[in-house]
Amino acid sequence: MFAYLILIVLFVVYVYQYQSEETTNNQWSDRELRGTIDENYVMVTFQAGIDYWKRPLKGFEDAAESLNVSVEYRGATQYDVNEEITVLEQVIAKNPSGIAISTMDPEALNPVINKAVDSGIPVVMFDADAPDSKAYAFLGTNNHYAGVTAAHKMAELLNEEGEVGVVTHPNQLNHQERTQGFRETIENDYPNMTLVDIKDGRGDQMISKEVSEELIREHPNIKGIFASEANGGVGVGKAVLDLQKKGDLHIISFDTDKGTLDMIDEGVISATMAQGTWKMGYWSLQFLFHLQHDIAGELEGETNLPRYVDTGITVVTKDNVNEYYPVE
Amino acid sequence: MFAYLILIVLFVVYVYQYQSEETTNNQWSDRELRGTIDENYVMVTFQAGIDYWKRPLKGFEDAAESLNVSVEYRGATQYDVNEEITVLEQVIAKNPSGIAISTMDPEALNPVINKAVDSGIPVVMFDADAPDSKAYAFLGTNNHYAGVTAAHKMAELLNEEGEVGVVTHPNQLNHQERTQGFRETIENDYPNMTLVDIKDGRGDQMISKEVSEELIREHPNIKGIFASEANGGVGVGKAVLDLQKKGDLHIISFDTDKGTLDMIDEGVISATMAQGTWKMGYWSLQFLFHLQHDIAGELEGETNLPRYVDTGITVVTKDNVNEYYPVE
Repeated sequence: MFAYLILIVLFVVYVYQYQSEETTNNQWSDRELRGTIDENYVMVTFQAGIDYWKRPLKGFEDAAESLNVSVEYRGATQYDVNEEITVLEQVIAKNPSGIAISTMDPEALNPVINKAVDSGIPVVMFDADAPDSKAYAFLGTNNHYAGVTAAHKMAELLNEEGEVGVVTHPNQLNHQERTQGFRETIENDYPNMTLVDIKDGRGDQMISKEVSEELIREHPNIKGIFASEANGGVGVGKAVLDLQKKGDLHIISFDTDKGTLDMIDEGVISATMAQGTWKMGYWSLQFLFHLQHDIAGELEGETNLPRYVDTGITVVTKDNVNEYYPVE
Repeated sequence: MFAYLILIVLFVVYVYQYQSEETTNNQWSDRELRGTIDENYVMVTFQAGIDYWKRPLKGFEDAAESLNVSVEYRGATQYDVNEEITVLEQVIAKNPSGIAISTMDPEALNPVINKAVDSGIPVVMFDADAPDSKAYAFLGTNNHYAGVTAAHKMAELLNEEGEVGVVTHPNQLNHQERTQGFRETIENDYPNMTLVDIKDGRGDQMISKEVSEELIREHPNIKGIFASEANGGVGVGKAVLDLQKKGDLHIISFDTDKGTLDMIDEGVISATMAQGTWKMGYWSLQFLFHLQHDIAGELEGETNLPRYVDTGITVVTKDNVNEYYPVE
């Protein structure tokens, strides 16, 4: 009788186990988007402590939750390309499952990026590309289009007429592209607007303030200034405050650091161009996962990844500024 | 005794069930990339029977396998915008989980696309965009860059010197962009190459053949012709064969229909530009899934999708042509 009992118990357990396994096995294919916790993907940046990276990292972490993998954040503490190379060397030495890199120099990291790819580690670039490296994809802002968007917003603010200027950082490619997109759009689409000058603020708040004061003195009818980066935008804002011109001209800036957001809240800066930074991080990890798991198309030699993803621009004004303060 | 037996069996079963549930529940977060089979995503095209759509559809199906959802293929049988609108209306009436659309007209589908979005159905565009519609994203080829790539390939084939021409379909925006990218690159990067003429082949094989014969007669030293679309490419190929010029000039074409691939295999066409069509389908479904499941970033008002994805170009030559024949 006892033997029977054991047999029946074992049988029932067996049936249960069998059913469970059957369900589990049929649920997922080889293409399943589910990794393991010991897969480790690393995000590498420079000036690693600044607020700007919080959103890409949040996207990276959110994708890790989606995909059931682990992520890690590393970066050069300074704006120092050799430090970034060293950090990247250290990351590669640990043989991670994939690396998402934002480079402070479009060329200098190429040898170490290529070393990672050649040793089989998936690499994608985000925010700032290394176009001649072997990285599989780039996810970032189309800077020309961001300048176009800024120009249309400026035209809207000024009812499509009046003098405007630009304060930029002309040594960097992304700023050249933003300025060009702004200039072309004003010139081609708005016959009653004139771009009177483009000043070099060198990415520095004080210098941007000085050149803006110059710009406003030289062009007393100026109605708008586009600053192609955040330090410049705050500098222009301080110039406008010092010259007691608040309300007389519209400032459009770039990015969403706290100083910029505060000036939007106070009505000094009218709008800023927010980059799709969460998307950069989220889709970077998706891409790395697809490379690591070789969930490829049917063609040999072709990766399953788009080479370029435009993560887009959102215009931030007083109406939506509160959504952009950093989440602690 | 029998009562004991039943109790023991029930207890063991209970323990098993409990353990299984615990394992299952802990495995996935709210962000899991796993749908249900009753989620139905639809791909909508025009000229639905042509080979060109097989690869995007394969990508769409592969993503469905990854995400455990269902997909369906619908399309206008003809090159007829009203038929495509009717098909889309029928698809919307069934309230699907999402729709990926390639439009044959950048404007005409906007009202019905917007109707779908307004009724809560996620929509993305692939291959051909409707930029002023409410669709959330566009995944397709950067046609300007495709023209640039064709020009570099032509320069490589001709050792960077000689006369070249273009046969194109100037009424369509994508062909204008391809031609412009080709022209600018030849003019700016290759001082020993000359673009001697751009002919209108109207997307038709016979007309393209005739204008190519003209082009070759008018410019007897011509060393290369870029055809911006597949019918044109085959037409140029036939002209070269008829004039017994095979081997005297290089043809670069576009897309990978059978006629083009055969001519590459026979050495009549030197290269063709393959679009990332599998990627268009795969990432379209990924994007629709992310919209349907609201796996969003932290910002309100911002979708989690890049607005534009460049699915890239691959150069196909005799070396890799076999990979591009349709999979049955």
